[in-house]
Amino acid sequence: MKANDPKLKSWVDVPAGSDFPIQNLPFGIFKTKYLSPVAGVAIGDHILDLVYLHEHGYLDGLGLPAGIFNQKSLNEFFALGRKKVGEVRERVSEILRHDNEELRDRVAARELALIPLSECQMLMPVTVPNYTDFYSSEEHATNVGALFRDPKNALLPNWKHLPVGYHGRASSIVVSGTPIHRPRGQVKLPDAEAPVFCPSRKMDFELELAFITCVNTPLGRPVSIGEAEDHIIGFVLFNDWSARDIQQWEYVPLGPFLGKNFGSTVSPWVVTLDALAPFRAEGPKQIPHVLPYLAFEGAKNFDIQLEVLLEPAGEAMVTLSRTNAKYLYWNVAQQLVHHTVNGCNIQVGDLYASGTISGPSPGSYGSLLELTFNGQKPLHLPGGGERRFLEDGDTVIMKGHAEMDGVRIGFGPCTGKLLPAIG
Amino acid sequence: MKANDPKLKSWVDVPAGSDFPIQNLPFGIFKTKYLSPVAGVAIGDHILDLVYLHEHGYLDGLGLPAGIFNQKSLNEFFALGRKKVGEVRERVSEILRHDNEELRDRVAARELALIPLSECQMLMPVTVPNYTDFYSSEEHATNVGALFRDPKNALLPNWKHLPVGYHGRASSIVVSGTPIHRPRGQVKLPDAEAPVFCPSRKMDFELELAFITCVNTPLGRPVSIGEAEDHIIGFVLFNDWSARDIQQWEYVPLGPFLGKNFGSTVSPWVVTLDALAPFRAEGPKQIPHVLPYLAFEGAKNFDIQLEVLLEPAGEAMVTLSRTNAKYLYWNVAQQLVHHTVNGCNIQVGDLYASGTISGPSPGSYGSLLELTFNGQKPLHLPGGGERRFLEDGDTVIMKGHAEMDGVRIGFGPCTGKLLPAIG
Repeated sequence: MKANDPKLKSWVDVPAGSDFPIQNLPFGIFKTKYLSPVAGVAIGDHILDLVYLHEHGYLDGLGLPAGIFNQKSLNEFFALGRKKVGEVRERVSEILRHDNEELRDRVAARELALIPLSECQMLMPVTVPNYTDFYSSEEHATNVGALFRDPKNALLPNWKHLPVGYHGRASSIVVSGTPIHRPRGQVKLPDAEAPVFCPSRKMDFELELAFITCVNTPLGRPVSIGEAEDHIIGFVLFNDWSARDIQQWEYVPLGPFLGKNFGSTVSPWVVTLDALAPFRAEGPKQIPHVLPYLAFEGAKNFDIQLEVLLEPAGEAMVTLSRTNAKYLYWNVAQQLVHHTVNGCNIQVGDLYASGTISGPSPGSYGSLLELTFNGQKPLHLPGGGERRFLEDGDTVIMKGHAEMDGVRIGFGPCTGKLLPAIG
Repeated sequence: MKANDPKLKSWVDVPAGSDFPIQNLPFGIFKTKYLSPVAGVAIGDHILDLVYLHEHGYLDGLGLPAGIFNQKSLNEFFALGRKKVGEVRERVSEILRHDNEELRDRVAARELALIPLSECQMLMPVTVPNYTDFYSSEEHATNVGALFRDPKNALLPNWKHLPVGYHGRASSIVVSGTPIHRPRGQVKLPDAEAPVFCPSRKMDFELELAFITCVNTPLGRPVSIGEAEDHIIGFVLFNDWSARDIQQWEYVPLGPFLGKNFGSTVSPWVVTLDALAPFRAEGPKQIPHVLPYLAFEGAKNFDIQLEVLLEPAGEAMVTLSRTNAKYLYWNVAQQLVHHTVNGCNIQVGDLYASGTISGPSPGSYGSLLELTFNGQKPLHLPGGGERRFLEDGDTVIMKGHAEMDGVRIGFGPCTGKLLPAIG
């Protein structure tokens, strides 16, 4: 892909360390004081308004339907398929190249097409018809199994044979920046006879990466491993907020429910699989060998550096964890193939989260549950405080980027502030 | 409600034993050779076309938005709320009363407004943004716990404190009459070291009742027990097809996934809570007492007789089970209140299934898993065959109705044929 050339420069200023150089060009939905929600592409500290480009002929020849970017979500655009979305990204790259005068030299047009990010509010990039959460980090599954069940048999017998997953709540997925209220619920204290009803005392985050699909398949037709990645348009960061005490009391036998569905946060920019192509990596070796329907060729993991930061109310930000998506045991192609092998149909905009991404060392764990050993070993903060679980007023910030040859493909932050329980 | 008066008769012929007398008037979406999908009301062996009524002034004065019935789903109509939907039902009742000549005596209009059910294809009544499955029958939870886990501790410690539920797959919910392919998946045979990949050998149905919500609530705001029923528009029958062998291997620790999400079937008519008002019943006594947020007053169960029939290919139909919705331990108001007590938001068209409804005796179990004790005690069919689990070509038919004072409020059948695995 031409758009991935590390030598490319844009005539739009891209500050050092920006997540959005010309090699990225992620898609999102934004609004301003003057514009209702529309689709755009991030470049440096600006958004390129795709409606403007489309209506003024800059995207002619791509065969795009009228009004395709004048939408509250990217679903219809993504439904055009990976190839067409890739063509749009290539054309946007061309328009933004330092040596292309098409837009660069039309000052009035440039002013209208390029809007400072600081003047924009980002919205949910897609409407999510179905949301699935996997459990694909071996380190996380092992840590949680040891804490919630039996340290000697932390990894359950099915874990290395299939990418364990479950259905989550689509309605409560919100975009970065949306505050989350501490949920109330049933909690059973260790020595109590009966549960009590109270605000959760074990509020946690889970650092995840989520992919989004761009096709509708008919019920009954599995997706094969060869075609899986063609159905995936890109990734967002994902904070799967968790109330550990509610979760622990409710989750046997049918899985997590109210411990999760009070809210999940996504980053607003969909970073395409195309933009991440240079950052493919080998995943962990899969032993025992997987069943043939899950067998794959080539590098299907992605080398994406991930970070969780905490900003307590009125205090400085502190990094809690640094990890990498390449540690994931099950890759996205395997996740999608397994999800559909029974004939389950998928839809445009469906979101599939990885499960918490933990690395091999304690500083690389993707949740407080693991970082503090279920609250037994508090983290000490530079401001003097400590954290076993989240406190009201805490803001959790997740970041992610891939970097090579001086090119940094980033996601922009995925943030959320925890507010007190209502009422 | 006038429309519930058991003495009412319609000028439309309603055959004896029909599910759709003038006291029912359920809503659905249908199409014909000549009509694209629109909303209608069932009366006897006919559908009353709501678009025709609306466009020809029969619903004037109700303040209905233009085009509200000219839709592929009832979502926008239901979003008007229980009160407005109830007013439409009352007005339709008035139009259909034996002594009302408005439509009865206009032969040409009558011919256009009333379409024989036999000429109609029923479609999904709503678009389902989110689907939740509860587990609210004590008999079912006990039977399954004994078979899958430990007969001595069949009911888990949380079961009597909260209505256990989990998120299911919305995309694969289909309308009655849609065939379902036997899913393939991973199965671990009892003596095997590793799982195999094969078509499920333990295909089952689950007899459930599902309710549908008619409001969008904001994230963070729980629904109280007092307002819960105002947010529920009505019920459909629900077959939660299950592949028991796939389910058993995958479901620990995050719950059922591919053992369920290959397909679920709903009956096409939404029977309103208003129509079921005369059939309220006391549920089982809840001991221990529930937490205050789940405490309710009045009769919140419904006396709805339910039945599962099997039609093997080329053979006669046979009844496998007869049970009643009144056996459910947790009622719909408690289910909705619990679901939202953590701030989880709900949407118009969300579907909440009860979980398998089993009664106290073996002939009242709502799944083959229970009826055949996980395949150990086969059912003998009149045709000479037997069933431990479903065979290819089997059609499962679920029926439900409430009956009193000669009035029968029925759902129409919820059917699905099991086809062989694809490929």
